[in-house]
Parts: sequence; structure tokens; C-alpha cells
Amino acid sequence: MNFLEEKIVQDGVVKPGNVLKVDNFLNHQIDVRLLDRMAKEFKRRFAGKPINKVLTIEASGIAIACAVAREFDVPMVFAKKSKSVNLDGQMYVAEVESFTHKKTNMVVVAKKYLNPEDHVLIVDDFLANGSALQGLISIVDSADATVEGLGIAIEKGFQEGGYRLRNLGYHLESLAIVESMNAETGEIIFREQG
Amino acid sequence: MNFLEEKIVQDGVVKPGNVLKVDNFLNHQIDVRLLDRMAKEFKRRFAGKPINKVLTIEASGIAIACAVAREFDVPMVFAKKSKSVNLDGQMYVAEVESFTHKKTNMVVVAKKYLNPEDHVLIVDDFLANGSALQGLISIVDSADATVEGLGIAIEKGFQEGGYRLRNLGYHLESLAIVESMNAETGEIIFREQG
Repeated sequence: MNFLEEKIVQDGVVKPGNVLKVDNFLNHQIDVRLLDRMAKEFKRRFAGKPINKVLTIEASGIAIACAVAREFDVPMVFAKKSKSVNLDGQMYVAEVESFTHKKTNMVVVAKKYLNPEDHVLIVDDFLANGSALQGLISIVDSADATVEGLGIAIEKGFQEGGYRLRNLGYHLESLAIVESMNAETGEIIFREQG
Repeated sequence: MNFLEEKIVQDGVVKPGNVLKVDNFLNHQIDVRLLDRMAKEFKRRFAGKPINKVLTIEASGIAIACAVAREFDVPMVFAKKSKSVNLDGQMYVAEVESFTHKKTNMVVVAKKYLNPEDHVLIVDDFLANGSALQGLISIVDSADATVEGLGIAIEKGFQEGGYRLRNLGYHLESLAIVESMNAETGEIIFREQG
């Protein structure tokens, strides 16, 4: 197990409905040292890519994306959730469905913060059905910028998001991939990574 | 002018209605180097305080609070906005009124992440009427924890929040205090700080 898998086993809580709570270090209380370690690992996995911007989505992606942007020494941009579509043509817009909250949000990025010269690493805390990532990818595409990679803390390997995105040819790196988990025993099984 | 005031003059945009847009480096696109510099300045201003936790509120406080927590080498906790009050007694709750969005949110912190032994530095990006800070203070009080200080990036000195909180005896440090701004000329005048 790597350091993040160990942390998940130690402090994560499996809830019914395939919910993995990592409020203790990633989603509510934040372990900033762990974020730094995760950022360094992303730097290693995306070495050699001409990344000049990190993109994420509010709110729980912000912490990890800041750590990654810091490690790459590039700006970070976070997509904002928006209820209004009163956006005066200054915004890239995408629809994102929340797995946790079972609802659809509009997410927006101001056009001036993404342009065709940008080589973007998209970062998020969780990957399940991939709706958030696909929204962010479509925003990068709208800007004619380049998606250099997708960096995820925890992927739910038993949902289809990761499979689909790898099939589309994206360089997706998840620091921990949960193959299965058991809310009764609390057991979590991770996919072996090379 | 200090480094943050200079950045605000350079990249901030004054809008009608006393709105200061700092989307370019603090609220949408994030300048992570600037955050680190701000964090070091907070470390200096709150030197000697036994701070063991940083508390903020989602979403735009998360980035700066992470940088501050990293500098102090302590965990960060962010209060979550919540629509439901279905909180099963596991949460501290406060009401916060948003100046920008003119609405009231419930914000919550899980009880297990704040306890009487905690010495908390509350951090946020903006201080205007002080509603967010007062909500966070009341959450810290609910936990019988200690507020060691309030660290703000940009205070609107012409609104009453800062005045009121200093009067209540809190150690409030704002890296930049805007005394007045002019949407027509774009001019921003800062309060002199010793």
C-alpha cells in the first residue's frame, strides 16, 4: 500500500451505499502535510508534461489543487458552481452531476483564465462516475487549451468514470483506486498499481 | 504599501457597489506563491500564540487557510455550507449571511474536529460585515475551544465588521485594509498599518 492507501485504511470510514468518508484528512479536516506528499507524487507521475495551470472544482478540490499548483509552481483555477446562467458571455460553462448530492450544478470558469496556450492538469479529490472531470475537460476544450492529465486522490474503481476516461485516451492518475469496500466490516480493497 | 496591497492595486478591479474583484489571484484563479507569502506574514503577526488548528469556511477561504495551516504545521478545518438542518447532533451549526449573495447559509463543523483543547486561528479571504467570522467564532465557542486570532486577507475598512470584532477584543489581523475605493477611477486607498 502507498501512503494514501494507508491513510485511507487508517482514517477513512466506509458507509452503506459505497460511500467512503475521508472527512478526517481530505474533505472537512485537511491534513496539509498529506496534501504536500500527494502533490509530490503527482509531480512524479506527470513529470515531463508542460503543465502551466492546475484546474479543479469547488469546494473540496481546492485544497489538493493548491498543493499541486504549488508543487508545479503554476497558477490554480477553480471552477465555480453557479445557479444562474446570467453569465454575459464571459464564462465557460459545463453541467456537472453530483454523485453525493444527486443534483446537477452549472460550473463556470471565466474565459480570461483559460486560453489556447494553456496546458492543464485537472485535479480533484474523488473520481466516481466522472461527471465533474468531464465537465472540467469540456471547459478546457471550450478554451482550445490542452488537457495534459487528470490527477485524482481517490478513484472508485468499481464505478465507470475512470474506465471511460482512460478509454478516451486521457492520462489519468489516481493515487488510490478502491476496487471494493464493505460497510459492514469496514474492509477496503485497492487496485494494485505498478 | 505591502505586497498584498501592491497586488490589489495591480490586479484588483473596483466595481460599483463597493465590490472589489480579486478573481485574478485570490477568488477564482489562485496565485499560490502569493498565498505562501500571506501565510508567512500571518505566522509573523500571530507569533507566540499556541495555535494548533486553522478554521475557515468554504469555498474561497480554503486556499488561503491551507497555506496558513501549512505554515503553522497544523490541521485545517473548513466549515461547510449546508441547506439541511438534518444534522443528527454531530455538528456545530451557525448562521452566516453572505454580503455578496445577499442570502443566509447554515454552516456546519463536525464536532469531532473541534474540542476544548483547540487553539484556533480563524482565516478568511474577505472581511466586510463580519458575518462569516462571527459564525465561525460562535462555532469555536460552541466547542469550548479558544479563538487565538482572526487572520484576513482583505478587510473592507469602511464596513463595520472589523471595528466590531476589534472592539470585542479579538486579535484581528488584516493584511490589507481598504479605507475607500472608487469604481469610476479605480482608485483604492488603504489604511496605514504600523
